Amino acid sequence: METARLVWSRLPHSEEGELDGVELLSNTSNRNGVDSLDYEVIENYAYREEQAQRGKLYVGYNVGVKWFFALLIGIGTGLAAVFINISVENFAGWKFSLTFNIIQKSYVAGFLIYILINLALVFSSVYIITQFAPAAAGSGIPEIKGYLNGIDIPGILLFRTLIGKIFGSIGSVGGGLALGKEGPLVHIGACIASLLGQGGSTKYHLSSRWLQGFKSERDRRDLVTCGCAAGVAAAFRAPVGGVLFALEEVTSWWRSQLMWRVFFTSAIVAVVVRAAMGWCKSGNCGHFGSGGFIIWDISDGQEDYSFEELLPMAVIGIIGGLLGALFNQLTIYITRWRRNYLHKKGNRVKIYEACLISVITSVISFGLPLLRKCSPCPDSDPDSEIECPRAPGMYGNYVNFYCSKDKEYNDLATIFFNTQDDAIRNLFSAKTIHEFSAQSLLTFLVMFYTLAVVTFGTAVPAGQFVPGIMIGSTYGRLVGIFTVNHYKKLNIEEGTYALLGAASFLGGSMRMTVSLCVIMVEITNNLKLLPLIMLVLLISKVCILLVYSIWIDVLQNVLTLFPSQAVGDAFNEGLYEEQARLRGIPLLESRPKYEMRKMTAREACGNQKVLSLPRVVKVADVVSILRSNKHNGFPVIDHTRNGETLVIGLMLRSHLLVLLQSKIDFQHSPLPCDPRGRSQAIRHNFSEFAKPVSSKGISINDIHLSSDDLEMYIDLAPFLNPSPYIVPEDMSLTKVYNIFRQLGLRHIFVVPRASRVIGVITRKDLLIEEEIEDSAITELQSTSVRGQRHEKRLLVRNADAERPLLSGILVQDTDHTLS
Amino acid sequence: METARLVWSRLPHSEEGELDGVELLSNTSNRNGVDSLDYEVIENYAYREEQAQRGKLYVGYNVGVKWFFALLIGIGTGLAAVFINISVENFAGWKFSLTFNIIQKSYVAGFLIYILINLALVFSSVYIITQFAPAAAGSGIPEIKGYLNGIDIPGILLFRTLIGKIFGSIGSVGGGLALGKEGPLVHIGACIASLLGQGGSTKYHLSSRWLQGFKSERDRRDLVTCGCAAGVAAAFRAPVGGVLFALEEVTSWWRSQLMWRVFFTSAIVAVVVRAAMGWCKSGNCGHFGSGGFIIWDISDGQEDYSFEELLPMAVIGIIGGLLGALFNQLTIYITRWRRNYLHKKGNRVKIYEACLISVITSVISFGLPLLRKCSPCPDSDPDSEIECPRAPGMYGNYVNFYCSKDKEYNDLATIFFNTQDDAIRNLFSAKTIHEFSAQSLLTFLVMFYTLAVVTFGTAVPAGQFVPGIMIGSTYGRLVGIFTVNHYKKLNIEEGTYALLGAASFLGGSMRMTVSLCVIMVEITNNLKLLPLIMLVLLISKVCILLVYSIWIDVLQNVLTLFPSQAVGDAFNEGLYEEQARLRGIPLLESRPKYEMRKMTAREACGNQKVLSLPRVVKVADVVSILRSNKHNGFPVIDHTRNGETLVIGLMLRSHLLVLLQSKIDFQHSPLPCDPRGRSQAIRHNFSEFAKPVSSKGISINDIHLSSDDLEMYIDLAPFLNPSPYIVPEDMSLTKVYNIFRQLGLRHIFVVPRASRVIGVITRKDLLIEEEIEDSAITELQSTSVRGQRHEKRLLVRNADAERPLLSGILVQDTDHTLS
Repeated sequence: METARLVWSRLPHSEEGELDGVELLSNTSNRNGVDSLDYEVIENYAYREEQAQRGKLYVGYNVGVKWFFALLIGIGTGLAAVFINISVENFAGWKFSLTFNIIQKSYVAGFLIYILINLALVFSSVYIITQFAPAAAGSGIPEIKGYLNGIDIPGILLFRTLIGKIFGSIGSVGGGLALGKEGPLVHIGACIASLLGQGGSTKYHLSSRWLQGFKSERDRRDLVTCGCAAGVAAAFRAPVGGVLFALEEVTSWWRSQLMWRVFFTSAIVAVVVRAAMGWCKSGNCGHFGSGGFIIWDISDGQEDYSFEELLPMAVIGIIGGLLGALFNQLTIYITRWRRNYLHKKGNRVKIYEACLISVITSVISFGLPLLRKCSPCPDSDPDSEIECPRAPGMYGNYVNFYCSKDKEYNDLATIFFNTQDDAIRNLFSAKTIHEFSAQSLLTFLVMFYTLAVVTFGTAVPAGQFVPGIMIGSTYGRLVGIFTVNHYKKLNIEEGTYALLGAASFLGGSMRMTVSLCVIMVEITNNLKLLPLIMLVLLISKVCILLVYSIWIDVLQNVLTLFPSQAVGDAFNEGLYEEQARLRGIPLLESRPKYEMRKMTAREACGNQKVLSLPRVVKVADVVSILRSNKHNGFPVIDHTRNGETLVIGLMLRSHLLVLLQSKIDFQHSPLPCDPRGRSQAIRHNFSEFAKPVSSKGISINDIHLSSDDLEMYIDLAPFLNPSPYIVPEDMSLTKVYNIFRQLGLRHIFVVPRASRVIGVITRKDLLIEEEIEDSAITELQSTSVRGQRHEKRLLVRNADAERPLLSGILVQDTDHTLS
Repeated sequence: METARLVWSRLPHSEEGELDGVELLSNTSNRNGVDSLDYEVIENYAYREEQAQRGKLYVGYNVGVKWFFALLIGIGTGLAAVFINISVENFAGWKFSLTFNIIQKSYVAGFLIYILINLALVFSSVYIITQFAPAAAGSGIPEIKGYLNGIDIPGILLFRTLIGKIFGSIGSVGGGLALGKEGPLVHIGACIASLLGQGGSTKYHLSSRWLQGFKSERDRRDLVTCGCAAGVAAAFRAPVGGVLFALEEVTSWWRSQLMWRVFFTSAIVAVVVRAAMGWCKSGNCGHFGSGGFIIWDISDGQEDYSFEELLPMAVIGIIGGLLGALFNQLTIYITRWRRNYLHKKGNRVKIYEACLISVITSVISFGLPLLRKCSPCPDSDPDSEIECPRAPGMYGNYVNFYCSKDKEYNDLATIFFNTQDDAIRNLFSAKTIHEFSAQSLLTFLVMFYTLAVVTFGTAVPAGQFVPGIMIGSTYGRLVGIFTVNHYKKLNIEEGTYALLGAASFLGGSMRMTVSLCVIMVEITNNLKLLPLIMLVLLISKVCILLVYSIWIDVLQNVLTLFPSQAVGDAFNEGLYEEQARLRGIPLLESRPKYEMRKMTAREACGNQKVLSLPRVVKVADVVSILRSNKHNGFPVIDHTRNGETLVIGLMLRSHLLVLLQSKIDFQHSPLPCDPRGRSQAIRHNFSEFAKPVSSKGISINDIHLSSDDLEMYIDLAPFLNPSPYIVPEDMSLTKVYNIFRQLGLRHIFVVPRASRVIGVITRKDLLIEEEIEDSAITELQSTSVRGQRHEKRLLVRNADAERPLLSGILVQDTDHTLS
């Protein structure tokens, strides 16, 4: 045990390396210029002393702040969702009632007005995005997923992105494009959470000192997870769905403690949205508020289903799998093409593109229903509340559009010339059998599918949920028509099939399972259909897997005809993963690759040169090391008295940069600083080492040092992470991957095989509390007992620490580290 | 790099240590005689060659089998649930209709019959449990939780336990005790899953060779997780709730891949149960099948709620928190008392106890309603389907029991002299305002609460869900009565408050959140109440926290008056954790203890002596090491040519025992075996090393060796795990805990600080696929490209491997290992 009594035993290595025992997010600077997050909590004296002083009260305060933030996120996201909904529904409602008024006189004038309003809204949206908040384009879910996986994409969580997303969504959704506001709401929730977590936006002078408690990456990540759940909860008014979405789709690390908080945030959102809708019901919000808390309520739909119906439902599942996978595939092609050709030409092209798509969408949605012959209204049932045709300016089924007679309606206009929410409500509606003709549904399906594919990837905030539901419910209803015709005696509602279709398409495209189920149930308020939704989702998944394996077989024969890599993957990954991949966000999946089984940790490092730093390092050496490479972490090596080298910790580039910039730790002597003179570390505020979210941090080129400075030394000991994770060199890469991924690491040191084992830790050693409990009545005294224990331990350590101080420790090792 | 080219580089260390890269369950033999699971996949040549030969097809087959098993678990659990339900409802229905018939003539005779039937049922249950399947007592959820956390309690997953649980539940629930069948159904699902996973029960000759694919602990654990979800799904007909319950409450490790399979199992259960109920509707199953798929449907209940109602709802939350925590506390006392005094006296006492409780329950449930005056039926509403009094032999509200007039009902009998399912349905029912008097509800609450506390812990299968719902809905309805009286103009249903009460009590007692919400929604089919349920759960949680902190403060002053340790904890942990603790199941919580922050890995090992084995070890030495201690894993140490020691892997006690028992690996020479003569390893069937679930495995005392045998040697190299997890000696225990817990380990080696870093693994190094993708069109060719790569690597390794063979490696190290 002689060798164990070493210089680094003075270091504060005994506490955990992070604020809360979980290693922080991982870093990388990857090939597509996506800057990565670089943040690790420093274990310096100052911080820990500060924390120790605050003690239990501080912990309590911290927990309180976390819950208070969860409350604020819930309220903020709820209000943002209400604001967007009110705006969109009022813009859209005003647009449609104006158009309907004008077409009483002239269809041409109505047509023009309709196109112009849409164009103006879409233009405003794309203008905001391109000029003001480029990071707000798209749904934002892949980026948030990346953030929670450890990759910080610049700009994605800024205040301007939040504002751009809110107003951009209003424009793009209000302008009638084939996209939804649900994805953007998730992003909005995440932005609100992140801004709260970093204490407001410094740039816009909205920051508050009081809120700057969350400098830990893990706490920020937790808040963003809450924000995502809040977004979904607000978008669909589906609180449980929100929690599950955050759990299943977005986060990479999930802790059971977080569940409660996420759940609380979702509940708050539900309460806020509900309260706002209650207030709006009395007519304070114009067109908004008529829908009720359940978005597309079909609880009065089909009561029961029989086994004969399983066949058409399976058909829906298969169609969903195929069309969903095809959708992903097509969007990949379009996005690649956009990225490589169109969007390289600058913002102007993006604006033109969005405007052009807006005009096309308007023309198709207005023009196609004109070509469709009107149908006579069904015999009115006095009990039914559904009017035919619907009253002007109201929502509902049976739209009278370009019909010659009063008692007629245009089935294509009912879904096409309408807001998407209303169209979906019509498609889901029960007791409206044969409202839509197969021909109209087919036309709509083809046109809308094309529009959705083309619109995907334009420079406006865009969600894929609502378009997915539109597409799915259309073919679902189509299958429903055939089923109704075939099984005449059964009590079948076409709306049920529309719902199943929607679930199957979303399943095929986004590959969510449990959260999608719950969301579908919550938005339709029909629990009885749950097993059917599950069934349809499973079939669509199996169908994708089958097609995928066949596809791969075929392609392995055809090969090289396509840019084949994308084709193969398309059938294997969900929309968000695809988007993340296209944007160069290197997500670490939860499962290691099959190839890793045959590799060792050493092989994964390849021939990379390890650059290590000595404990006390010359400033000039630090600068040259930082200039010479892009690594983000460096091992720090020290020497024992008998000349052996010893790895004493991990030093982060970002922390080195902070030290270089502040200069206050420079010392003239190449000897380690006195550990009891802790003044160096206290000179630093803990928050100096924190990097703001969504920024690139300092670069070595920003730092200017005089030649005197370069001759000075820094003692790294107070600033390094003294117990980085290690793996032996010949460990299987699969195991290494699991450690890295499951603990959320950024650096693992690969070390040689150990020469001896000091101890073996088993479950027994980790059940401290239990042992004591059994032996005594002292649980409540345990604080004191334990306190004494620790004091003893600390004494021992201090005794240890005092012996080998400052004697023959320092061997300048610049050769080794710079070679 | 010289030192790296060592003898163990010949070992098959490059593949991962487990079947699928996840380290297996942890082990311990803890103080209460709970035997722990000891199983780690051996990395021998034979197994891996076998697997390599099978290749991709084998992987596909394996995936197929997993899904097929999920299907079987779903069907099995669904059928078991249907069987139990049919039996219970028929027994109970027959019991009540018989009693009702008899009391037309004589109340005394009816009373006796009622008591006798209950007694017979309960006796059969307790007899089965005590004589045949002692592990089937209680709910089983704590044990399953322990199993999934890594602790294998003997007998808990056996076939006899399954059978005992099924028939025991029928007896105890049918016999009218204050317990439910939901917890036992979770246990039943887990048993079915585990039996499938180990290929049937060998003892009862029900095993099948074909199914013995699951020798990996992880696969078994996944199956058991599916089984738990299936159990909840079957018990409450709540498939999503089942998935969430498994996720939130039961498992310790959750992988997103598993979600799909669990989900599938739940869906299958839903389909099976639904189909069975459809078949039963036509009257094939006697009393069963009238309820519909939704157990306690209140979807036609309260439509809306106003802000004034939040106050009474908050009150419900507070009551729930308090009563729930009190329930846990009381059950702790009772269980301790039972364990320490009553149950020590043998099975006979257990039988007497259960029978006594049955008689008391019968007397109270029959006798108390007799004392209650009947109320006149409310004015009948012609639209309402609720009859008053209900027709004899039917389920429903308004039970006529000991009433003098025809148009009267006994409100206490409506809830007390009834099956629990029916009582809950009555308590939840809408449009029955003022059916129950406050006095009756209060009487029932007090009596049933006491009965539930007393019944808890008797030697019968017992779930706490239904009693919890009973208790909660009683005080909920009580609050509802006051609310209705107070806010007269509002449209309030007492049933809504009953539901919220049920949620609050379960929240206060079991501390589940999301899964409980979803289960409550699914069993009542009323999504609109979701935010309210969330709210109530939150309030109950906050209330518990507040009370807990006050309680602790008070107690710290009073101290030592109580066996105080238990009191403090009771308010902090859920029912299942409490039960697990009482049964001595040492669960590793997801969060490290606060004290661990100040400890290092070395300190956790304490002064424990590390016993290591040399690579080639004498049989006599193995035996003496195994006899001398109870450790389950031993480091294996080898020597390099220049005399340095080197840790080459981890050898498990159980594997050593297998080697000792089979004797085929004994060799005369103390030299390592030729690695190319792989015959030794192939002599072993991989499954020899697998330990059957729920058994104790072989012990060193079962093995008999001749003195010749003791003089032989074993080369451990083919059988050890060559890359166990390591941590440096001064790593914070919090970090170690996280590694241990999150990766699900059993052994971690504590090693000295490394002398150098070979490489640093970052995210970039783990994104192999991505790099290739960007650089080429070769994704589909990647199999071959990668194949070549690997071949090269393997060649390098083989070259490495051939050099240092058999030369100067062997230094007998028995002194070191045995000292």
